[in-house]
Amino acid sequence: MYIRGISGNAGEEDDSHSLLIRAGFLRQAYSGIFHLLPLGLRVQDKLERLIDKHMRRIGASKVSLSSISSEELWQKSGRANNAELLRLNDRRESGFLLSPTHEEEITALTASAVKSYKELPLRLYQISRKYRDERRPRQGLLRAKEFLMKDLYTFDYAPEMALETYSDVRGAYAAFFDELKIPYMVAEADSGAMGGNLSHEYHFLSSKGEDNVCACNHCSYIANEELAEKRREPTQAQQANVPHATWTGISKDNKTLVRVYYPQPQRASADSENPAATGPSLSDLNIHVLKQIYPDLNAAIDDPATALRIWDSNVSAEVHPRQCVDIFDYRIARNPPSAREDPDVPGTDSSSLTTPQSELDTARDTAPSSHPGNPQSFDLTKISSGDGCSRCATGTLTVHKAIEVGHTFHLGTRYSAPLNAVVAVPPEVDAAGQVAMQMGCHGIGLSRMIGAVAAALADSKGLNWPRVITPFEVAVLPGKGNEEDAVGVYEGLMGRGRGAPVAVGQEVELGYAASREKEEVVLDDRDRPLGWKMKDADLVGYPVVVVLGRRWKGERVVEVQCRRLGIKKEVEVEEMNGLVRDLLDQL
Amino acid sequence: MYIRGISGNAGEEDDSHSLLIRAGFLRQAYSGIFHLLPLGLRVQDKLERLIDKHMRRIGASKVSLSSISSEELWQKSGRANNAELLRLNDRRESGFLLSPTHEEEITALTASAVKSYKELPLRLYQISRKYRDERRPRQGLLRAKEFLMKDLYTFDYAPEMALETYSDVRGAYAAFFDELKIPYMVAEADSGAMGGNLSHEYHFLSSKGEDNVCACNHCSYIANEELAEKRREPTQAQQANVPHATWTGISKDNKTLVRVYYPQPQRASADSENPAATGPSLSDLNIHVLKQIYPDLNAAIDDPATALRIWDSNVSAEVHPRQCVDIFDYRIARNPPSAREDPDVPGTDSSSLTTPQSELDTARDTAPSSHPGNPQSFDLTKISSGDGCSRCATGTLTVHKAIEVGHTFHLGTRYSAPLNAVVAVPPEVDAAGQVAMQMGCHGIGLSRMIGAVAAALADSKGLNWPRVITPFEVAVLPGKGNEEDAVGVYEGLMGRGRGAPVAVGQEVELGYAASREKEEVVLDDRDRPLGWKMKDADLVGYPVVVVLGRRWKGERVVEVQCRRLGIKKEVEVEEMNGLVRDLLDQL
Repeated sequence: MYIRGISGNAGEEDDSHSLLIRAGFLRQAYSGIFHLLPLGLRVQDKLERLIDKHMRRIGASKVSLSSISSEELWQKSGRANNAELLRLNDRRESGFLLSPTHEEEITALTASAVKSYKELPLRLYQISRKYRDERRPRQGLLRAKEFLMKDLYTFDYAPEMALETYSDVRGAYAAFFDELKIPYMVAEADSGAMGGNLSHEYHFLSSKGEDNVCACNHCSYIANEELAEKRREPTQAQQANVPHATWTGISKDNKTLVRVYYPQPQRASADSENPAATGPSLSDLNIHVLKQIYPDLNAAIDDPATALRIWDSNVSAEVHPRQCVDIFDYRIARNPPSAREDPDVPGTDSSSLTTPQSELDTARDTAPSSHPGNPQSFDLTKISSGDGCSRCATGTLTVHKAIEVGHTFHLGTRYSAPLNAVVAVPPEVDAAGQVAMQMGCHGIGLSRMIGAVAAALADSKGLNWPRVITPFEVAVLPGKGNEEDAVGVYEGLMGRGRGAPVAVGQEVELGYAASREKEEVVLDDRDRPLGWKMKDADLVGYPVVVVLGRRWKGERVVEVQCRRLGIKKEVEVEEMNGLVRDLLDQL
Repeated sequence: MYIRGISGNAGEEDDSHSLLIRAGFLRQAYSGIFHLLPLGLRVQDKLERLIDKHMRRIGASKVSLSSISSEELWQKSGRANNAELLRLNDRRESGFLLSPTHEEEITALTASAVKSYKELPLRLYQISRKYRDERRPRQGLLRAKEFLMKDLYTFDYAPEMALETYSDVRGAYAAFFDELKIPYMVAEADSGAMGGNLSHEYHFLSSKGEDNVCACNHCSYIANEELAEKRREPTQAQQANVPHATWTGISKDNKTLVRVYYPQPQRASADSENPAATGPSLSDLNIHVLKQIYPDLNAAIDDPATALRIWDSNVSAEVHPRQCVDIFDYRIARNPPSAREDPDVPGTDSSSLTTPQSELDTARDTAPSSHPGNPQSFDLTKISSGDGCSRCATGTLTVHKAIEVGHTFHLGTRYSAPLNAVVAVPPEVDAAGQVAMQMGCHGIGLSRMIGAVAAALADSKGLNWPRVITPFEVAVLPGKGNEEDAVGVYEGLMGRGRGAPVAVGQEVELGYAASREKEEVVLDDRDRPLGWKMKDADLVGYPVVVVLGRRWKGERVVEVQCRRLGIKKEVEVEEMNGLVRDLLDQL
C-alpha cells in the first residue's frame, strides 16, 4: 500500500523541519500549528505505544483528561497569570483555558477520588494535546502552540515513597530512551516555575537546541546550564587584587541600579562570536545565578550607560536612599575601595552617582551577595567549554546545544497542599491522621521528539528513523517492468514481519486487523521512474530500502540499501529477508 | 491487575450516565466537559481501533489535524458566524477557534497537496477531539462541549465516483455497527447546514434520544422526522370543505404575519401529552417542512394572539403593503373565502387586520405554498406513530426516540468550490481541464457512542458492554481465602485469550507489550467482601464474571455469570475456559 497524495521529493538540501514537510509527515496550518499526515501520524502512534509500554511497566494507568481547564482552579495553584495560557472566549465568558499541562486538573481529580493511603501509590498518565500561547513559535515541532505530550503524575503519602517512585520513573525513562538508540543526556535541572526540588531533563544533542547542557568529560556530571556549576578556583585567588570588571544593570522597576563585580574576562584576541563585546556585558555572566540572587533584574538592558541613564532619570535626587545593589563574584573581595568609580564601567561619571556614600552602603547591605542558606558566595561568570567540572577533580566541562525532550519532577506538595489533595493515614504516619499527597510530574514531548529525532538523524539526502518509531521499516521500489514481481517481494517481506496472522476463526478478523496495523513494509506502486522513487525513499527515511532494478529480471537479485549504516548490497531474493532483519536489528 | 483509585459501587438505581461516573469510567470536570478514567479510556481505545479497522478496509488513511482553525478560513466557507464555535483569546487576537468539525481544514489541506485526478480517490480520516460551545450541555457524553469524533473526508473528481465512495462508506458503517451487536437504524436524513444532497444517520433507539426517527413496520423506510414523509391521503380529499385549523405565527424580523392552513386535528378526548392544546398550535405542524417553505419563521412564538399583537405593533399602518404569508396544506384548497377571518384563530379581530384586501393578495403571492421545483404542495402536519408510510402502500410509521451516533454526507462541491480545491482532469472529463473535487464527510461520535451504548444496555444493576468494546472481557472475583488461587484462575483465562506471546528473542518485548495491551481479564484483588466485589462487577458491566466462592476450596468449582444473557452456572475449573468463550462469542 502506498499512501496517496502526501509525498513530495527532495530538491535542495534543507533543514530537518523542511524535510518533514517535504517528505509528507506534516503540514503547517498556522504559525506553530501543524496537521499530521499519515507518515507523521504513524511515527507519533509508534512513539505513543512505546511510551505506553514503559508506563505500564511501572504500573501507571492511562487516563484522558479534558484539554479544557478553568482559571478558577489555576488561581488556587497560583498559575493563572501565566502569559502563555491560551484562554477561551465562550458563550458565558466562564474563564476556561486550554491546559499546557495538567497538574491542577489531575490533583483536583485525585483529591476527589482518593481518600486513603491504602489507595496509594497511584500513577496516572495520559498522552494528549497541550496548548501554549507561544510568543514566537519556531523550529516547527520544537516550539509549537499545540503539541502532543505524555504527562505522568505520581501520588504517594510519604516523601521517601515519592523518591522511590521518582527512581522508578527515571528507570522507565532510561529504558524508553535506550530503545530509540539515539545518544541522549540526562541532566540535573532547575525545577523552575514547577516547584519541587528534584528534577532531571532528557536531551538530544542538536545544534538546533535552545538549551545549553554542560557535561563533564571525566565523570558522570551532566547539568543544564541553569543549574550547572564549574569547579571553583583555589581560594587563594579570593583576594581584592584580582583584576575585575563591573557590569551595571537596572531593576525591572527602573529604580534600583545593579552592579556586578566579576573577574576580568580573558578575551580571545579575535572573539568571533561577539566581536563588539570589549566592555563588560551580560554575556560574560551566568544569568541564571544572577536572577536567583536578584530576581528583579531587568535582563533586557545590557548596556551599562543606558542602565545608568534610566536609573538617573527615574529616581529623583530627593529620594533617600537611592537604591543600589552590588553583587560580588566569589573571587572578588567585597566592597573594593575602587568599586564605586570603576574605570571599567563605560559612561560612568561622578555626577550621575549623586547618592551619598552612606546611603549607597545601606542600600548595598540589602542585596544578598551570597544566597540565603548557601554560605558560599556565587560564581557569577558564565560556564563555557573548558571550565573545570565541579564534581570531580580532573574533568572539564563541555557546553552542548541540546533539545529537551523529557523531564521528570519531584513536586512534593506544591499542588496537593493548595488544592487540598489529602489522604487519611494511620497515626504512626502522621498524628493529624491525614497528609497532603507527595506528587511527581513527568513529561515526554511527543511532537517535540519527532522534530528532535528528525534533527538528530537527518542528513543531506533526507530523514532517518530509529526502527522503533519509523513509519515503515522497509520500502520496496520496483523499477520499470518489475511492478508485478514487486508485489511478491513485498509479500515475502510482510510474511516474515512481526504481525503475521496466527489463528483462524472469529479471531482472524481482529488478528488480521492487528497485523495490518503493524504492517511494516510499504510498496511504492506509484507510476514514477525508479530514480525518483529512490530519492523519495531517501527523503522519507525508511530504515531499509529494497530495489528491484536491472538485475531483477534475469537473476532475481535485489539491492538492499541502508543509508544510516552506509550499506548497499545486491543479494538474491532468497537471502533478502535475512539481510533485512540483520540490518533492522542494528537500528 | 486492578486499576486503583477509580472505582465506586452502586447504591441506588440510576441512569446510565450516573452509572458511568459511579463505576469509574469518567468524571465530569465542568459542565459538558469530562475526564476519561482508565476504564472509560479502554472502551474509547477499543472503539477507536474498531473504527480504524473498518476505515482501513475502505482504503482510508489516518491523519491528525490541529484542533485549532482560523475564522478567516471559516469565512470563506460561510460558517464563521456559527454561535457554537468556541473561539480562542490569544496573544494577538488572531481569530482562532476550536474546530467542531474539519471540512474547512481538510479541504484547504487537500487543495494544497493534491493537484491531479490521478491522485484520487483520496480518503482521509482522523479520530480527534472536537469542540462545540453547547448552549445547554446535557446527558453526559451525549451532548458535551468537548468530545471525540471520527471524521472521514472523501475526495473524488466525478459525481458518479463520489457516489460509489458514498456506497463504500455506507458498507463500512454497516460492518462497524454490526460488530457492536446492538440494534441500530439507518435513517434518511436532512443534510441541513452541511449542504449536499445525500445523507444518512445511524441511530440507537433510546428514550434518552433527542432525535425522532420514523420507521415503517412493513417496508425498509426509515427516515429522520426532519425528512420523513407520511403517506398522502387520496386526492379526492383535496377540497375546500375539509375542516381546517389556522395557526398564526410571525417572521423573525417581526414584520411578516405567517398563517398556516391545515386539516383540523382530531384530538383525543384526553390528550395527555398536551392537555392545554385545544387551539391551533405549532405542535400540530411539521416544523421542518414549515422552515423549508419559510426559513424566516420565528418558531419561538407559538401563540397566535401574541404573533398578531407583535406584528400589529411593529408594522405601522402606513407601511404598504403589510406583509402576510399564507401557507396551505395539500388537503386545503388555496385561498378559501373564509380564510381571512378564520374563526379558528383566537384573538383575531378585524381591526388588527387593517391591510387592504388587494395588498394582502399581493403579499400572499410572494409566499410559496408549494416548494420551488416540487410541483406538489406540502403536507404540513406532524408525523406521529400510526401515520401511513409514504414508500409502501400498506405499512404504518412508528416514531422512535433515538440517539444519533453516526452520519454520512455526500457534500459535492459545497466546500471544494469556495475553497478552490480543484484537480487537473483530462479534457474528456471536463473541457476546462480542471474540476472542483467531489467531497463527502462521514462522522462517528465516539464519546457519544460510549454514552449511547451505556444507555442502550444498562439495567438496574449496572452497565453492560458489547464484547468488542468492553473495558475487560472477564472479571475474576475471589472470595475470602481464595485470593491466591484466583491468580491461577486468572492466568488460566489469560492464556487462552487473544494475545498470548508467540515468539522469542527481541520480538518478545514488543509481542509481550501488545499482549498486555490486549489483556482482557481483570482480577479484583482489592481487600473487600465478595458481595461488594460482585456488586461492583455488575456496576462496571464486565460481560463475564468468574466467582471463586464457597464451592472453590473443596471442589474447585467456579461460578460463571453473564448478566446480559441471564446465565449463572457453576462449573469445574477445567470447563471454565470453554464456557467463558461460548458466552463471549454471543456478546
